[in-house]
Amino acid sequence: MKNSLPIVITTGDYNGIGPEIITKALTKIPQKADKIIIAGDKRLYPQSITDRYRFIEVPMTTELIYGKETKESGEFSFQCLKKACELAKNNKISGIVTAPVSKNALHLAGHNFSGQTEVIETFLAENGQKAEMLFVAKDFRVLLLTRHIALKDVKITRNLILEKVKRLNTVLKRDFQIASPKLALCALNPHAGENGILGKEEITEIKPAIKELKERGIDITDPMPADTLFVSAARAILENKLQQYDCYIACYHDQGLIPMKVLAMDAAVNMTIGLNIIRTSPAHGTAYDIAGQNIADESSMSAAISHFI
Amino acid sequence: MKNSLPIVITTGDYNGIGPEIITKALTKIPQKADKIIIAGDKRLYPQSITDRYRFIEVPMTTELIYGKETKESGEFSFQCLKKACELAKNNKISGIVTAPVSKNALHLAGHNFSGQTEVIETFLAENGQKAEMLFVAKDFRVLLLTRHIALKDVKITRNLILEKVKRLNTVLKRDFQIASPKLALCALNPHAGENGILGKEEITEIKPAIKELKERGIDITDPMPADTLFVSAARAILENKLQQYDCYIACYHDQGLIPMKVLAMDAAVNMTIGLNIIRTSPAHGTAYDIAGQNIADESSMSAAISHFI
Repeated sequence: MKNSLPIVITTGDYNGIGPEIITKALTKIPQKADKIIIAGDKRLYPQSITDRYRFIEVPMTTELIYGKETKESGEFSFQCLKKACELAKNNKISGIVTAPVSKNALHLAGHNFSGQTEVIETFLAENGQKAEMLFVAKDFRVLLLTRHIALKDVKITRNLILEKVKRLNTVLKRDFQIASPKLALCALNPHAGENGILGKEEITEIKPAIKELKERGIDITDPMPADTLFVSAARAILENKLQQYDCYIACYHDQGLIPMKVLAMDAAVNMTIGLNIIRTSPAHGTAYDIAGQNIADESSMSAAISHFI
Repeated sequence: MKNSLPIVITTGDYNGIGPEIITKALTKIPQKADKIIIAGDKRLYPQSITDRYRFIEVPMTTELIYGKETKESGEFSFQCLKKACELAKNNKISGIVTAPVSKNALHLAGHNFSGQTEVIETFLAENGQKAEMLFVAKDFRVLLLTRHIALKDVKITRNLILEKVKRLNTVLKRDFQIASPKLALCALNPHAGENGILGKEEITEIKPAIKELKERGIDITDPMPADTLFVSAARAILENKLQQYDCYIACYHDQGLIPMKVLAMDAAVNMTIGLNIIRTSPAHGTAYDIAGQNIADESSMSAAISHFI
């Protein structure tokens, strides 16, 4: 990690809780001010923040309307992220922390991405790199094989598993300093398909991928019924023990995010890995429903920042 | 409930942990012996059990082979269940508790059911009744809209929701004595589809169903992102508070079972509702991998029995 370089925190959608949780999180770590640049509009922050922190200015073009997803707030959140990516591309920063955006607001502004991960991948992937979505709460880590897509579009293929697990294994070694990562793979179907009775993908796609991964020296389980697999993760957390696996691999969004959020709650961090720079983010959304009330919990934002500094 | 009548406990697949967890659970409640009939083969139980409990004899036709799913163990587990259903149909019992079976062993024996719920429904549904699968751990309850099917076969329609939620509401009032059930519905797609960007079913099927249910006076939420919905369930459990909702409704197996097992662990009970008799079952499977080692945990079986006596 390029620890001498600062990180950028993007403001996200200003009609949500972004500025509030950034302000609260930074207020707890004033001594770190020289390591942090904020991408956004100074008018969204109190003087205690604007006096102390450097800004990459991204101007708001309309009034703030708490709780409303607008074309303008979508465009603003996109521009914050774009500025952060430009700094990353020019090696001016060592990490990106993003406050939440609204996918719908991005779409209203004409940016048809399914999330910030995809925006960052578009700007920063080099030489065939791909962004992966990893959720982290201390040593409890969950990788998603598929991300923000409709459930009916979830297709798990041998090639998808091979590609993503090889990348994950490399990142765990290189960026997390885990010498021999132990990986656990969720089955796609209930009860891991019960020998094909409840779905065939475990037999036709998943097991062949695992065989090949094992032949390449990667330590990964057979497809495990997700509901029982995560019970052992829960036990480790309850008993304050280390996780048995360095990473759990989920086939789709809710399969990975339900156990992560239920077990880690506000400590969960959404991390983009696989590119030259790591990006972290709170694991929650814009929280439009409580925006502007000063009741948002900054724990996940603090955890996202603390990955770097 | 017909409390004066006994309940039946079925042995399940004898190559799994069924006899072991039944023995352990019953050993803790010897004073209840006259309220319990065991369906199975006496040779699977120690004398302390066979001396004290009545049996409906279902003979084993082969040797016991711990950990192996066989045609014979599948047929045996099916016959145990069938005997229990016959007693229920003749109003001889007040409830059924089932030890786990192997779906694959059932299939080997020619019984192409996807689980015991479907067997019981086939034997006991009257006048258009349908069995529903409810998981219960104290006041944390999760209903599955779809059960043991491949993920790709999960289809959530307006009619499916209407039918199952109306039935659930009736059962919660009638069998659980909840005067005005409060229901929370998981969205099918991640982030509840984000206005159709991540799937259309929330718009085309789920919201119209909810509108109609509300018009009928049923208290149910809009489709909620499942990963955040279950965080509030987790908070209630951690803080030892009552659940905000009397039942959470999941669209498919892992969406409901992951939070149930992660949060309730061994306290989770699988319950069949909607018929004239209630059936409970441990929320785990045959556990072939630890069968015969006397290390199985009977907590979930005890919880299943304690629903009745």
